[in-house]
Amino acid sequence: MQKGDFVYISYVGRIKESGEIFDVTSEEIARKEGVYNPEIKYGDVPVIVGAGFVIPGLDEALEKMNVGEKKVIEIEPQKAFGERREDFIKLIPETEFKRQNIDVKVGDFVSVNGITGRVLSINSGRVRVDFNHPLAGKALVYEVEIKKQITDTKEKIYAILKYFSNLEEGVANAKIENGVVEIETKGIQIASRVKENIVKTIFEWIKEINKVKFSELYEKSEKSKS
Amino acid sequence: MQKGDFVYISYVGRIKESGEIFDVTSEEIARKEGVYNPEIKYGDVPVIVGAGFVIPGLDEALEKMNVGEKKVIEIEPQKAFGERREDFIKLIPETEFKRQNIDVKVGDFVSVNGITGRVLSINSGRVRVDFNHPLAGKALVYEVEIKKQITDTKEKIYAILKYFSNLEEGVANAKIENGVVEIETKGIQIASRVKENIVKTIFEWIKEINKVKFSELYEKSEKSKS
Repeated sequence: MQKGDFVYISYVGRIKESGEIFDVTSEEIARKEGVYNPEIKYGDVPVIVGAGFVIPGLDEALEKMNVGEKKVIEIEPQKAFGERREDFIKLIPETEFKRQNIDVKVGDFVSVNGITGRVLSINSGRVRVDFNHPLAGKALVYEVEIKKQITDTKEKIYAILKYFSNLEEGVANAKIENGVVEIETKGIQIASRVKENIVKTIFEWIKEINKVKFSELYEKSEKSKS
Repeated sequence: MQKGDFVYISYVGRIKESGEIFDVTSEEIARKEGVYNPEIKYGDVPVIVGAGFVIPGLDEALEKMNVGEKKVIEIEPQKAFGERREDFIKLIPETEFKRQNIDVKVGDFVSVNGITGRVLSINSGRVRVDFNHPLAGKALVYEVEIKKQITDTKEKIYAILKYFSNLEEGVANAKIENGVVEIETKGIQIASRVKENIVKTIFEWIKEINKVKFSELYEKSEKSKS
């Protein structure tokens, strides 16, 4: 593939050392492997090759693959979720949690200034919290397949919508005319941060589009008509 | 006028007892009377008569007026900002403010659970806060004029936009076709609460509209084109 190609991929991601699955796109495999989570929407994942939609090691591997190809790739921590950093382990006074009425216990996940960490220990009123990503320092093994490539502009728009907002065709509708794409939703508002990411990605990776219009439609209900 | 008429009005609102101006639509009068506030956008105010855009006493008065007419009206508290209620004065432990690092002093405005109140006194760690509207219990005098009536559908849309979001024509653009109004802004997002109010008001007071579409347009900047 080439940088900028739009593809849909499927994968099983495992921690190399333990073989534990931390991410999987297929519901069937999730069930078979006993890691099925009813809150997850399974299915092939849209990726713009080389655009950082996936971790660097996987992105690089995709560039060397062809549509329909399946590969098992090993990824070192520095091309996955980074090395573990000792300086990401912080000592926080227990009083700071008490002030927010939070009762911390070892093993708890806590959020401090918007960053999530795990409580390692509590001693003499000091809480040791590890803010490293849970997969930091781990080598990973991905079994990845490029299921298809898409080249149609409208399908590319839907791929970007799916990636950033999980909106499927039908819930969001895209119309393209003269370099303008109109993305219409009914009664659904897309968060402003998400809109910004969608716009940035469209302008960067779909050269033929130079205007993006988000439209939300509201209809009068029958009972309120008179 | 009749209930549902769209008009633009100007007014000077005074507290009857003191003669103090608490609200005025004309910049010229504001300056002359020494109450000019540079943060306020002065100008005639859009009102749908009888729709609660203004206090009940003023709304009722408008129904009895004609376009171009000017009137001085007295409004009793129950048709203005309500009577003062003693049960809206609450005792709050000073520790509750300290916990939020707020240092309260008599006369301060404080926000508790999203409601603003004024600190009346602080005694033995207990803070007396008055959550009554500052104009509660006051009789008011309005000098009001109906400047013009509008009947054009598009102008009605702009009146509603101005009332709820202060967006002027040009910043927001309305297009109407087959009972659908499209409200387009460039790079500006209207808050979702505000959108809901705009939609509700359009459906209630502009019978010929049965769909509202909010569109936000994003354009690729020259430098990001390639």
